[in-house]
Amino acid sequence: MLSTALITDLYELTMAQSYLENSKVGNAVFSLFVRKLPKNRNFLVSCGLETLIDYMERFRFGDEELMYLRSLNMFKDSFLDYLREYQFRGSLYAVPEGRIVFQNEPILQVEGPLPDVQILETLVINIIHFQTLSASKAVRSYLVSRGKGLIDFGLRRAHMPEAGLYAARASYIAGFSGTSNLLAGMKFGIPVFGTMAHSFVMVFDEEIEAFRAFARSFPERTVLLIDTYDTIEGAKKAVKLMKEGVKVVGVRLDSGDIEELSKAVREIFDREGYRDVKIVVSGGVDEYDINRWLSAGCPIDAFGVGTKFITSEDAPYLDIAYKLVEYEGKPKYKLSPGKATFPYKRQIIRHYSDGKMSYDQVVKYREGGLVELVVDKGTLKKPLPTLKDIRELLMEELKTLPESLASLEKSDYRVDVESLT
Amino acid sequence: MLSTALITDLYELTMAQSYLENSKVGNAVFSLFVRKLPKNRNFLVSCGLETLIDYMERFRFGDEELMYLRSLNMFKDSFLDYLREYQFRGSLYAVPEGRIVFQNEPILQVEGPLPDVQILETLVINIIHFQTLSASKAVRSYLVSRGKGLIDFGLRRAHMPEAGLYAARASYIAGFSGTSNLLAGMKFGIPVFGTMAHSFVMVFDEEIEAFRAFARSFPERTVLLIDTYDTIEGAKKAVKLMKEGVKVVGVRLDSGDIEELSKAVREIFDREGYRDVKIVVSGGVDEYDINRWLSAGCPIDAFGVGTKFITSEDAPYLDIAYKLVEYEGKPKYKLSPGKATFPYKRQIIRHYSDGKMSYDQVVKYREGGLVELVVDKGTLKKPLPTLKDIRELLMEELKTLPESLASLEKSDYRVDVESLT
Repeated sequence: MLSTALITDLYELTMAQSYLENSKVGNAVFSLFVRKLPKNRNFLVSCGLETLIDYMERFRFGDEELMYLRSLNMFKDSFLDYLREYQFRGSLYAVPEGRIVFQNEPILQVEGPLPDVQILETLVINIIHFQTLSASKAVRSYLVSRGKGLIDFGLRRAHMPEAGLYAARASYIAGFSGTSNLLAGMKFGIPVFGTMAHSFVMVFDEEIEAFRAFARSFPERTVLLIDTYDTIEGAKKAVKLMKEGVKVVGVRLDSGDIEELSKAVREIFDREGYRDVKIVVSGGVDEYDINRWLSAGCPIDAFGVGTKFITSEDAPYLDIAYKLVEYEGKPKYKLSPGKATFPYKRQIIRHYSDGKMSYDQVVKYREGGLVELVVDKGTLKKPLPTLKDIRELLMEELKTLPESLASLEKSDYRVDVESLT
Repeated sequence: MLSTALITDLYELTMAQSYLENSKVGNAVFSLFVRKLPKNRNFLVSCGLETLIDYMERFRFGDEELMYLRSLNMFKDSFLDYLREYQFRGSLYAVPEGRIVFQNEPILQVEGPLPDVQILETLVINIIHFQTLSASKAVRSYLVSRGKGLIDFGLRRAHMPEAGLYAARASYIAGFSGTSNLLAGMKFGIPVFGTMAHSFVMVFDEEIEAFRAFARSFPERTVLLIDTYDTIEGAKKAVKLMKEGVKVVGVRLDSGDIEELSKAVREIFDREGYRDVKIVVSGGVDEYDINRWLSAGCPIDAFGVGTKFITSEDAPYLDIAYKLVEYEGKPKYKLSPGKATFPYKRQIIRHYSDGKMSYDQVVKYREGGLVELVVDKGTLKKPLPTLKDIRELLMEELKTLPESLASLEKSDYRVDVESLT
């Protein structure tokens, strides 16, 4: 079990030691929320809670961590003893994964003794931020995909493998059909896709030889990459193969003028009666491309969505914060310009009109609303939903999304935060 | 030992099985290079090789991985046996970490039997891409920092903890003074920094009480966060404390008009004779801010550089590729529009004029140049440099960087790729 305890900024621990020394060990509530949505996002998808709970269970200070902290000559033995015994026994109030959230809404609230909840700050922000970012980017492709397939091809450009793994999880929740990422396939049971790269084609003296060789190895799942030399010629070779009796499931286009090429390739196949051969498009694809190509009537059946999704290229971070909102029952807030916060533990009440979301209220916490008590004093209240459940929850949620928010054009949603100061 | 073998796109394995079945097991060379620099980058810093070698050593298919792959019903037993025995025994030709590289230059070349080097594609791109991206972003802050301190504060907004860890490593190579990231401190020996957050100040009834409490806990390293309520009032409280005999090392400003506030705070301290108190600035800081503030004469001693660095916000990915360039001694290249590649294993020859880099040539491989044989048929040729060595190499390298490339303004560098087709 790999410890996650040092996924922590130093100041969490200096503060915790000082809290303990100054008897600031009362009940505290921290709230995780996004101050302002990025300019290219109309809403966010809450994501990452299961991962956070997994990482929090491994937030334990072992010998290696304690030896390192001791070597810094900053911490007292009594504090290191506190860390050795540390295990989260507080409560988590969360918006379930797969729900839609907005600015100033508490995605997660952590309650417990002040030092215990303070030292989780870095981990909590890091884990929830990334999957919420990823799901919120991925769902934009889903919303313009008109039922076509979407496959996560991002692993190679993810910010390290761990980001690739959890972005794949987030994209599956957000409606993708699968991923090229084998680790995500193994860990989360997400369907995996993939056939060949340009290198495969280039190793053979003739392109058609490469196609034939691959079809021999995978007769039931041959998708041919046809743009290595000339896409139109590649499509003709695919036809030649099919006339020889080889089954070709689809072809992939990874470069060039996709609008023109996808139409030309479709025509070549249709003319010869191969109407079932699918066209997959990849290569720097994002939601804007998908929307433009499908609006232009391009006959594309599936998209490989990679780099721009996995780095959330047009908004690579959220303005997310984890702020103290309540201490020993008293409201806490700060006034820093542009960074003011709202006090007290909160609930989100969503109002609907004609089946569509109309506005949200963020009120003082009470039961009944988007926020649920998930972990009660260290104990999980009920089993966490499966990945499929989360995905289905989001699909239901999207039906209530107003059309303006579902589009790629910027649109704002009303969130009223009750003043409690 | 955690296996890294499934940090792999499915198509690497489908291709490998087909290579084996079609007797395509000859000697291959793949080249990792960046096609085109992002618009906000004048050069890149080669980074991540040590990490890659670490991850490659753990690229072994164990029972769990093989059981999963078997469950896909795509792979033959003979291929799964090949994977079970897999261990990289090929060669790595690399530009050492800490050297400056440009478009079309082979940062890494991997040579060995075709299936063996093909299946590493995803891992190789992922690992080298991220640290090269991070070091290339971080060094921009270093180049405009005029000797002031730079501290990585990015962990919370990193794309998962692993990205936070390796970005910290890259930033230290690129001249940062340290990090807030404890894991990076433990793993790489990078100096760690950090004191308090706004929550600490807010827990106490009075701001000055919080300052006093912290100073009691850490009398030798008190840096006070003074912008929770009012920065100027915060600075005055720091003065009051110092007059009481408390040692204050510095103050941190995390919001507001930094140019105005840093000058006002400096004046408050200087007027009272506290000229040694340092001013640290954080809060969405990037190289453009640092350059603007220091150009405006702001009396800032150190910067906490977080989100925009760790997400490489203005260029969250590089157009990096891992392409087959040679197979059984023959040149390999593709012609896809915008994605053409150059054949053969290569060397980079750098030309200097008056001690400054003037242009590079990318020629057919021979010894003597930026590219070194690092792993020879599975064996490390010599111990890898330490983190400090790499950092020093980059500092030397930066002295040879033409002024135009060292600025934040876009400037291009000439790279001549020898035509070998």
